[in-house]
Amino acid sequence: MELNTLNSKLNAAVKNRDKEAVLELLEQGADVNSQVDSGWTPLQTAVQNREKDLVELLLDRGACLHARKDNGGTAFTEAGIAGNVEILELLLERGSDINEQDINGFTAFMEAAWYGKEEALRFLYSRGAEVNLRRKTSEEKAKLHKGGATALMDACRERHFSVVKILVQEMGADVNIRDNRDRNALIHALKKGSSKKRYESAVSIVRLLLEHGVDVKSKDECGKTALILAVEMESPELVAALLEKDEIDIDDVDEEGNTALMVAVGNDDCKIAKLLCEKGARTDRGNLIDVAKRHRSLSMENLLREHKATFVPETPREWEPNSKRWRAQLKELYQMYRPMIGKLKIFPYKQQEIQDGIYLGLHGGTEVAVRKTLSAEGDKEKEFFEKCSHCEHLLKLFQSEKEKDCVYLCFPLWEKNLQEHLQDPGGQKDYKAALKMIFQALRELHCLRFAHQDLQPGNFVIDLGGKIYLADFGNKRRSIEGQEELVKSDLEALGRLVLFVLTGGRKPLQQVGIEDLAPNSPDYSEALDLVQSLSSRDERGLEGLSQHPYFWSNLSRFNFLKTIWNKIKDDPNKRSIFQDPVTKKTFPYPEWTKMIDKNILHVMENPRNVKRTKYSNAVTQLLRLMRNLDEHKDAEISKKIGDYAEYFLKVFPKLTIYVYNSLRRNPMCTHFADFQDPSL
Amino acid sequence: MELNTLNSKLNAAVKNRDKEAVLELLEQGADVNSQVDSGWTPLQTAVQNREKDLVELLLDRGACLHARKDNGGTAFTEAGIAGNVEILELLLERGSDINEQDINGFTAFMEAAWYGKEEALRFLYSRGAEVNLRRKTSEEKAKLHKGGATALMDACRERHFSVVKILVQEMGADVNIRDNRDRNALIHALKKGSSKKRYESAVSIVRLLLEHGVDVKSKDECGKTALILAVEMESPELVAALLEKDEIDIDDVDEEGNTALMVAVGNDDCKIAKLLCEKGARTDRGNLIDVAKRHRSLSMENLLREHKATFVPETPREWEPNSKRWRAQLKELYQMYRPMIGKLKIFPYKQQEIQDGIYLGLHGGTEVAVRKTLSAEGDKEKEFFEKCSHCEHLLKLFQSEKEKDCVYLCFPLWEKNLQEHLQDPGGQKDYKAALKMIFQALRELHCLRFAHQDLQPGNFVIDLGGKIYLADFGNKRRSIEGQEELVKSDLEALGRLVLFVLTGGRKPLQQVGIEDLAPNSPDYSEALDLVQSLSSRDERGLEGLSQHPYFWSNLSRFNFLKTIWNKIKDDPNKRSIFQDPVTKKTFPYPEWTKMIDKNILHVMENPRNVKRTKYSNAVTQLLRLMRNLDEHKDAEISKKIGDYAEYFLKVFPKLTIYVYNSLRRNPMCTHFADFQDPSL
Repeated sequence: MELNTLNSKLNAAVKNRDKEAVLELLEQGADVNSQVDSGWTPLQTAVQNREKDLVELLLDRGACLHARKDNGGTAFTEAGIAGNVEILELLLERGSDINEQDINGFTAFMEAAWYGKEEALRFLYSRGAEVNLRRKTSEEKAKLHKGGATALMDACRERHFSVVKILVQEMGADVNIRDNRDRNALIHALKKGSSKKRYESAVSIVRLLLEHGVDVKSKDECGKTALILAVEMESPELVAALLEKDEIDIDDVDEEGNTALMVAVGNDDCKIAKLLCEKGARTDRGNLIDVAKRHRSLSMENLLREHKATFVPETPREWEPNSKRWRAQLKELYQMYRPMIGKLKIFPYKQQEIQDGIYLGLHGGTEVAVRKTLSAEGDKEKEFFEKCSHCEHLLKLFQSEKEKDCVYLCFPLWEKNLQEHLQDPGGQKDYKAALKMIFQALRELHCLRFAHQDLQPGNFVIDLGGKIYLADFGNKRRSIEGQEELVKSDLEALGRLVLFVLTGGRKPLQQVGIEDLAPNSPDYSEALDLVQSLSSRDERGLEGLSQHPYFWSNLSRFNFLKTIWNKIKDDPNKRSIFQDPVTKKTFPYPEWTKMIDKNILHVMENPRNVKRTKYSNAVTQLLRLMRNLDEHKDAEISKKIGDYAEYFLKVFPKLTIYVYNSLRRNPMCTHFADFQDPSL
Repeated sequence: MELNTLNSKLNAAVKNRDKEAVLELLEQGADVNSQVDSGWTPLQTAVQNREKDLVELLLDRGACLHARKDNGGTAFTEAGIAGNVEILELLLERGSDINEQDINGFTAFMEAAWYGKEEALRFLYSRGAEVNLRRKTSEEKAKLHKGGATALMDACRERHFSVVKILVQEMGADVNIRDNRDRNALIHALKKGSSKKRYESAVSIVRLLLEHGVDVKSKDECGKTALILAVEMESPELVAALLEKDEIDIDDVDEEGNTALMVAVGNDDCKIAKLLCEKGARTDRGNLIDVAKRHRSLSMENLLREHKATFVPETPREWEPNSKRWRAQLKELYQMYRPMIGKLKIFPYKQQEIQDGIYLGLHGGTEVAVRKTLSAEGDKEKEFFEKCSHCEHLLKLFQSEKEKDCVYLCFPLWEKNLQEHLQDPGGQKDYKAALKMIFQALRELHCLRFAHQDLQPGNFVIDLGGKIYLADFGNKRRSIEGQEELVKSDLEALGRLVLFVLTGGRKPLQQVGIEDLAPNSPDYSEALDLVQSLSSRDERGLEGLSQHPYFWSNLSRFNFLKTIWNKIKDDPNKRSIFQDPVTKKTFPYPEWTKMIDKNILHVMENPRNVKRTKYSNAVTQLLRLMRNLDEHKDAEISKKIGDYAEYFLKVFPKLTIYVYNSLRRNPMCTHFADFQDPSL
């Protein structure tokens, strides 16, 4: 057998108290000091099992007394937990140190106190264990206020009354030591810990500590006084016991500003509220009547009214949301009382609805949009959102909260969806910028190997900065793998969406058609071509069409046109380039020399210092003129027509697309059309 | 008074039962139907107060009977909560509908059951309220499985035994209706709800339901059976009552695979574990012995052993971490048992430490690096991380968890820090790429208006993809506002860090000096100049130095040099450009014509078709030659010297920095040095 297997079997045999197997495995060469799990040795397990014989046997076979688990625990500290005096004695004989500590500073004495082992506690005490030792821990942990607790605190925390009694009465444990969180034994006794079962002993312990002069002003790490903790435990006995002490400040508040009475009313705990009111607790803090009303508790309300509580309408707290659109609703949400879902505050009713099934929320103070889903779906969504985290135009998840079988997905709050944005009468809209973002969003989604399948304006949201994000609120996306046709149907849908955007969202998405595009709208020719390319399942795909001339600036278009001449001037067949073999579309400006400003033509045909030239009506000649004009700028012309790019594109608006498509469709020239707008 | 104020006062007066004030405010014009908070009207509040007189008065003054709160609740459903029969009767008389529902489908009858109002329940029943009505809710909420519950379920949930009895025995309520989560009344009676105080009645209710034939196989939304829920409630009576039923499947599991016995052992609940074991629950599921050992519970272990449980070493579950470096530790963490901190699994001991105070973790299955801080500090850090979220090279926060007064900050796990990366013998290291990322990181931090103040290799971490992120583990960063000198000290530190990187991290950061940079290392001249610029608090600042020639590619450097000639050739003072007024550094290659390949010089001085020319030893002439050569490429030369850029930079390695600095320092030519490597 392999050594690892042997060792694993040895540890299992010890756990199963199978002494025969242990001996056999040691015989076969298993390592008596091998460690499993978080560092347990066979010796430590035998100690845990309280098997003195086996402990002795293992020690005789070379088990190391001082071996440590990952947390620094030794056989001796483990013996403190087991509480077996014979084993403790044996280990001491063999050389264990009475005050041995693990990494967190636990000694065997503390462990015995924690686990309520009276006999062991007394034995360790008799052998000189330090009673008031505070747990020493690493500097790193001390910085986090860990450590510093004593055996007495452990016994209090775990509510072993008899052990507390022994510690205080027989061993003189100091009741007022504070741990590194500044909590004394009283606070430990009152903390909701792991030991709800021993709840009853809390009362006896607290009484005992009070008798021995414990300081009732210690607070826990959240600033809660002993009184508040007793109220949280819903124990009238404890509250009564503490209220007997004059030093108690009944109106002291925790870090969140809650008094003991506020906690009691919040718990709808009439019995304790009565004790507090009768001892004179202030009733004018925390709008108690409102809280009682929320619980529909008439008896609580009556009690509070007897003690002079009245309802005071809350003055709105100062707070200004970032969102402009949702300002009023957010302020309302901020103001109202709502039970929290983790860190999320939400009031999922019509008034707070952003769009179908999506509500406003405040997550840890951040304004969010919240969609609630069933857990299974929510977990799948979260997986998807993790993939999105590096995408610029896919909606990101901000946080999520779980409650019962539901998940609340919280998104950074947006101002509008695409439809609302387009239909908003105010403000100028940059359609081209919007479409650039929309194209990029879909490209990013396709990169993640998903097709969207629901490209409608409600799925595009826009933040305060005008940035557009693609969402999938209806959960319609599908994996592309093996289904490339889904990509194509996304592109068709994108074509419709482009029309919807360019027509300002005036018609519903399903009704808008190419005829709705106004021929005098800016970039009409380019836009038309883009939409047709999308809906004809053009082979360029989304990546290629993202570089479509529609997205180019006017300057880029002009630069594109004017560089063509240089590239083709030496080609004897240059005219045939522009005879489109597929569409047979002809040059839209067959008489361009008559359309262009006379002056330009004259100046260009009669250059200074060089011999005269002539420009024919061919498209190539127009390109030549544009190139020559731009290379040899003429002050007079500039004065007359202004910016060259603007001028030419205005006079010949169909030129760019005509040239671009002609080049693209000509196998010899496709590369000339590979032009990139530097801003894209 | 303003109407809003009047209305607010009216509602407050009703809440305070101040009839006189109510009358006076109405007199003054307050709106009897004004709504406050989440839509409460004065009428609804008066109903809640059970003040029949005031209800009547408000109705007479025009209060709308059918007004709805935001959640759709009416005066009548509110009367069901209050349970006052006289008011219910009055509202019915005035026209309320007996089965009126709020948005969530609650009727007055359900409310009376929920709040334990027997008298009202009987009254509503007598007036024809539907007993077995299931709550109708919106389609959206029904999709989330909300709604469908009955009055009986409400009474069970809130543990009003007498109401349950009335519903079942007198009104014939159906015990086996299921809500939209598929839970019946039994499951509602066993859910840990808001009513821990009425815990005792759960036993009576469950007994009654069992007597009336309730289906014991119903499960809650997490797949928990009634038996598992009873075990969770730690109620031996309930467990015993359920175990009497033969239909119970004692080994049924919830969604997480837990049996009732596993839950009992997990709770260290010997009494219930005994009941289950004696009824034959399987002991071979969930490694119960291990769980009992974790609790150090010998009695539980003994009980389980009596019922044939044994310890079986767990076979490691299949799981492969993404991280290569931390593979072994992550697999260990994945395998071991750990109590969860929210969604975080962590074992904060040496074996799992990544670097000082930072431990491995698994957050919801994702590999993370975890730093624990005190809450106050953690919250401040989280605020900072939110600002970082759009930065590319600042370490981002993945998630955080809170426990007691500590916050666990979880970061995407990295493979190495910068020091470990540099010292790792394997793999080629691209120092330039690393420094680009480091510069960008610091630029991003400065953009957020923070100085780092602790730029040491441990604060740069590198992920699997080789991307570098800047962290601030020691919390040393400081706001720049009003302290611009902090930026400068960051730059000095950056200078040291650059040296540290370029020397492969061989010497500690504080000991490395400029003399450690090997003069034959690539980009030596540029690197030297960069370091000197950083440490001399150069006025270009971080932004400018990020465009330093060190970061340029060889091709870019060559392009930079060759374009200079065209820019200066017509300048009569071109030679003086290179007489540095500050450093007076002279041209490092005063005899460059002797250093360059003879062939090049010969070809360039004797061009074909053009007249012969001469190149002197001035730097400008070298630039001229580079320009001319590159413009008129010569096949023979190319064959001999290969790539021009590589050749010239190899023969004249100090040329780029010399030209660059000369131009930069000459007031007339600074702009010539504004060269951008297109990849930067």
